[in-house]
Amino acid sequence: MTDQPAAARSPERIAIDTIRTLAMDAVQKANSGHPGTPMALAPIAHTLWTRFLRYDPYAPDWPNRDRFVLSCGHASMLLYALLHLADVQEIDADGQPTGKPAVSLDDIKQFRQMDSKTPGHPEYRMTTGVETTTGPLGQGCGNSVGMAIAARWLGETFNRDGFTLFDNDVYVICSDGDLMEGVASEAASMAGHLKLANLCWVFDSNSITIEGGTDLAFDEDVAKRFEAYGWNTIVLPDAEDTEAFAQALEQFRATDDRPTLIVVRSIIGIGFPTRAGTHKAHSDAPGEEEIRGAKRSYGWPEDAQFLVPEEAKAEVTNAVAGRGRPLREAWEATFARYREAYPDLARSLDELRRGRLPGGWEDALPTFEADEKGIASREAGGKVLNAIAAHAPWLIGGAADLSPSTKTEIKDAPSLEAASPGGRNMHFGVREHAMGAIANGIALTYLRPYTGTFMVFSDYMRPPIRLAAIMELPVIFIFTHDSIGVGEDGPTHQPIEQLAALRAIPGLDTIRPGDANEVAAAWKVALSHTHEPTALIFSRQAIPTLDRGRYASADGVEKGGYILADSDGAPEVILIGTGSELPLVAAAHEKLVAEGVKSRVVSLPSWYLFEKQDQAYRDSVLPPEVDARLAVEQGGAIGWDRYVGRSGRTIAMSTFGASAPIAKLQEKYGFTVDNVCKLARELVEQAK
Amino acid sequence: MTDQPAAARSPERIAIDTIRTLAMDAVQKANSGHPGTPMALAPIAHTLWTRFLRYDPYAPDWPNRDRFVLSCGHASMLLYALLHLADVQEIDADGQPTGKPAVSLDDIKQFRQMDSKTPGHPEYRMTTGVETTTGPLGQGCGNSVGMAIAARWLGETFNRDGFTLFDNDVYVICSDGDLMEGVASEAASMAGHLKLANLCWVFDSNSITIEGGTDLAFDEDVAKRFEAYGWNTIVLPDAEDTEAFAQALEQFRATDDRPTLIVVRSIIGIGFPTRAGTHKAHSDAPGEEEIRGAKRSYGWPEDAQFLVPEEAKAEVTNAVAGRGRPLREAWEATFARYREAYPDLARSLDELRRGRLPGGWEDALPTFEADEKGIASREAGGKVLNAIAAHAPWLIGGAADLSPSTKTEIKDAPSLEAASPGGRNMHFGVREHAMGAIANGIALTYLRPYTGTFMVFSDYMRPPIRLAAIMELPVIFIFTHDSIGVGEDGPTHQPIEQLAALRAIPGLDTIRPGDANEVAAAWKVALSHTHEPTALIFSRQAIPTLDRGRYASADGVEKGGYILADSDGAPEVILIGTGSELPLVAAAHEKLVAEGVKSRVVSLPSWYLFEKQDQAYRDSVLPPEVDARLAVEQGGAIGWDRYVGRSGRTIAMSTFGASAPIAKLQEKYGFTVDNVCKLARELVEQAK
Repeated sequence: MTDQPAAARSPERIAIDTIRTLAMDAVQKANSGHPGTPMALAPIAHTLWTRFLRYDPYAPDWPNRDRFVLSCGHASMLLYALLHLADVQEIDADGQPTGKPAVSLDDIKQFRQMDSKTPGHPEYRMTTGVETTTGPLGQGCGNSVGMAIAARWLGETFNRDGFTLFDNDVYVICSDGDLMEGVASEAASMAGHLKLANLCWVFDSNSITIEGGTDLAFDEDVAKRFEAYGWNTIVLPDAEDTEAFAQALEQFRATDDRPTLIVVRSIIGIGFPTRAGTHKAHSDAPGEEEIRGAKRSYGWPEDAQFLVPEEAKAEVTNAVAGRGRPLREAWEATFARYREAYPDLARSLDELRRGRLPGGWEDALPTFEADEKGIASREAGGKVLNAIAAHAPWLIGGAADLSPSTKTEIKDAPSLEAASPGGRNMHFGVREHAMGAIANGIALTYLRPYTGTFMVFSDYMRPPIRLAAIMELPVIFIFTHDSIGVGEDGPTHQPIEQLAALRAIPGLDTIRPGDANEVAAAWKVALSHTHEPTALIFSRQAIPTLDRGRYASADGVEKGGYILADSDGAPEVILIGTGSELPLVAAAHEKLVAEGVKSRVVSLPSWYLFEKQDQAYRDSVLPPEVDARLAVEQGGAIGWDRYVGRSGRTIAMSTFGASAPIAKLQEKYGFTVDNVCKLARELVEQAK
Repeated sequence: MTDQPAAARSPERIAIDTIRTLAMDAVQKANSGHPGTPMALAPIAHTLWTRFLRYDPYAPDWPNRDRFVLSCGHASMLLYALLHLADVQEIDADGQPTGKPAVSLDDIKQFRQMDSKTPGHPEYRMTTGVETTTGPLGQGCGNSVGMAIAARWLGETFNRDGFTLFDNDVYVICSDGDLMEGVASEAASMAGHLKLANLCWVFDSNSITIEGGTDLAFDEDVAKRFEAYGWNTIVLPDAEDTEAFAQALEQFRATDDRPTLIVVRSIIGIGFPTRAGTHKAHSDAPGEEEIRGAKRSYGWPEDAQFLVPEEAKAEVTNAVAGRGRPLREAWEATFARYREAYPDLARSLDELRRGRLPGGWEDALPTFEADEKGIASREAGGKVLNAIAAHAPWLIGGAADLSPSTKTEIKDAPSLEAASPGGRNMHFGVREHAMGAIANGIALTYLRPYTGTFMVFSDYMRPPIRLAAIMELPVIFIFTHDSIGVGEDGPTHQPIEQLAALRAIPGLDTIRPGDANEVAAAWKVALSHTHEPTALIFSRQAIPTLDRGRYASADGVEKGGYILADSDGAPEVILIGTGSELPLVAAAHEKLVAEGVKSRVVSLPSWYLFEKQDQAYRDSVLPPEVDARLAVEQGGAIGWDRYVGRSGRTIAMSTFGASAPIAKLQEKYGFTVDNVCKLARELVEQAK
């Protein structure tokens, strides 16, 4: 037999080698990809899936399934091979089975090709069974902490005596690269603090990095570091020893007071004649000779490509489904009884699973009376959050140790801590990056998370914001202290470029509301999003609350931009403002109108939403024939040319700010009614 | 005596209490700031400065001075008080003394006011004695690792038998917040790996965070974690015990094989009657009652404000200068002898201190022959780097474990490792964030650092890029794999918004060269910058090398934008391209010209430099009367409206990319000669 593996090998070994050979064949065919790690980790992943993972391939959206996260996403073929061997069935966006496998053998042959279900790195929503998009290192680790937090929250909230709806575990496979990233350190520290006993990271310690051996840059004692975080740690000398690994997983499952790290030493590209154990096994097509040599070393037919022996598939499918399916069916039975015993809770769970909030929260949105002195939008944001929190019980979140400043605390709600896993106020510590990644993990587990920090520190957490956008997760990222309005803390704390940098992220709705009622409207938009993350941008300083009898309704926020105030007839000049500069341009408008200038004020809190409106609406707000346009925003100018054109002007920041009281800063940088009026008049003259 | 401290206290204690009372008085007067940590850490900082720091207040730019980094920059008053008490003298940008103190008592009274030398957070270049700008947590920790690396590099490079020019230490005071940040974890791991025995971090463990006690979010065993990184650790129970702290510093100085962490437990806002030891002591004006109570507890006159007893100033100045001045003078004498013994090395050191590269490197810049197949700009970048490296000996750097891909290795140069601290190739590991912060620290210590990673991971390191721009440090940040040209790795690895996000940073020169000769020109610009960081943006894929006989010289890069190709007379349409899209628009131009369209091609690799040109030059490149403009760039469109106007068009990315071979992606997203020509023709028609 030249087309079957050597008969002496066990079904387990054949399945493991199937993963390995699929990985190398797929990479070779695509002429790109990462074969070495799937080969090294096949025994680990196989053991985890076939002997531990509580997962039903025929109901991959079962809420209480264990989550498997491949943080080293470049090893995607490992996951695709498993999804194929376990016969995971595809479900569509509505949760309906499509009748197709999640990953067919043809899909594997289309590895890394346009529109295939097997992209270079695993993509959530693209492939059933991919629990999160990974690739940027450390992010999957961060996500997993959020998943474990959410799992415990769900258990605490929904489990009742005799009804255990949520007790799932979260498993991660991660690499040296993941654990070198700061985000993983932050997330691990937080997981230890929260004593997440339902979380297990398997660290593939292969002593290899892209530049060479890990001794070039990474020789710390990882297990000891994790012990310092409060983790249970186990070190295994050989990834080939599946029994030892199984025992380690048993130990994880028996540990109920802390997360577990299993360090497994592996040989990257195991089996390759010359590349095994070297950084050359990490990426790129290995070439015919290496592949043949590896197959030979496995007792595999050298000529066979994409060979999936029947016993391999049967072994994996039977093991995974054999354990997962009865568990899932039992869960369904329990849930049916639960629905009768606790109909309200069951209904909540239905809504959660559909990604909905319960009805009623919109009615709770406050309105704010006109007030010249006004209120900081962070304050208004806190009031809105608290008004809706009672009606949105699975809205949870917190700040990176800034909640007294970001006003992101839900009053009278408990903290989410190790002893109170069902709490709602999270204390992320000064860990912005992990906060973002954890929020993504929470959003991947049904809940609606929000985060909070100063806007300048959005820079610390851009990778997870980007991934929320890529994954279409409706995370709400709250950023306060949004401009030079920060004042005395100075340039290190005054965002300039952050607004443009957030607006530049595709699929992220960045909203900078201009007064308290726009804050309420912005929150409404954010909570209504189901496939977009939102960045809510709030001021530190008070902003006048506009008189909405005199001015247009803040409902216009839903369109991204709207005419706040106008003059009779065609406008001679359009003043555009966002955030704290909206009342400023409104005040300038009043002065200009009193002088006889036909001025219009446009509020443009969300470029994202405005660009979604049709051309007719956008032209009605910003008539193409009006060239005299002035945008005013206490951030960098980049991007504003889109709305002011080459004839318009922008009052914005072209430098970093300075440490001084806010009034001095606004004067220095031209954010005054007088300066707005002066430039507006110049534009009107210029257009004549 | 009601206006002097109680006589029974020692001069040391009076100096310590002077720091404390200055901090509270300054915060109270400014009505903003952070009093609690300066108060808590006064004994620590005082002991360090008066008994250990090798620093000459009268020559604060002495190259071999110990560096003091206040990573918790919000405690800025601690540093300002020390600079005042130590009588540090101001030097100007040319290194000349101004005859003024670095921080006078009047400066302290102007704490946090416009244009004062005492901004809210310490700002490099603003205040003599501030070694780095801090405030964003964790950054100072990262900088310090770079400073320690650079100090050892300088010692290895310049020290000779009998001539020890560099043996300085780097001290850091950091907070819980610093050590929760991932960047500090990454930096600490790297410092342990490099066995930086000249580095000492003092961790202020005050058990308080802004949201409450550290038990809310941070209860890991920090000392154990640092032991895992390979650090020497010492835990002290009481910040008031200056003898114990002095012994710990002695132990640090005696340790020659690893960095040292000293954990000091302190009481934030010590002395405050009600706020001491609580998070209320962290920030904000404490109020009269708290201040009086604190002063009372120190035996300080309650009514005195900004009191600096003579003996306090004398004690600190005499101690610091008494040790530092002779050391510095001895160094000058050594250096005078060194200049005779090693004139070339001495000259190099002179150049280093002036922030210059040695002559000759410009002549080494390669030129590239026209080549249709071309070369990836990352490849060209590697060739240019290597060509100039021999002539720029203090150009050092490396990548975040991607040097085979980023082509950032200096061939035939040794690695910078613990055993070879004078090497040039740094192995940062997968630690982009620390890489940026370390590079800043290296740049703060005379050397010219460069970093390398994939462009999408610029998101992981934005905080230090921003700080390089704020500090005006000429760090060179190399980002390769700059677009959907990444291909099969897919959306997680394809930058979209990163280009706009980098361009948005004030003071950062972002250059995306369009062929190999533009790469050489871009490197020339980057190395010529003395006060600007540069982001060099390179492609993964090959780009044709343009025929510079046919097209304009790549020297135009120095102006940011230039006419690459033109037609006779006024252009009917202007095609604008950068990077890999420049040869694309050049090809489209040829086709359009052949059709009789009067087309112009503008290469616009650096918006930053182009905006620095005068209006006449910019108008000569982009004539205001030509509305038919088409920009082509494989990134997000944000910002391009500035150059194409409301009548123009942009071929850019409005979504994330996809995993597929590059040719498929370029076709899918419209980056083809045919599509460029089609839109160009439409624009010409529209303008008629």
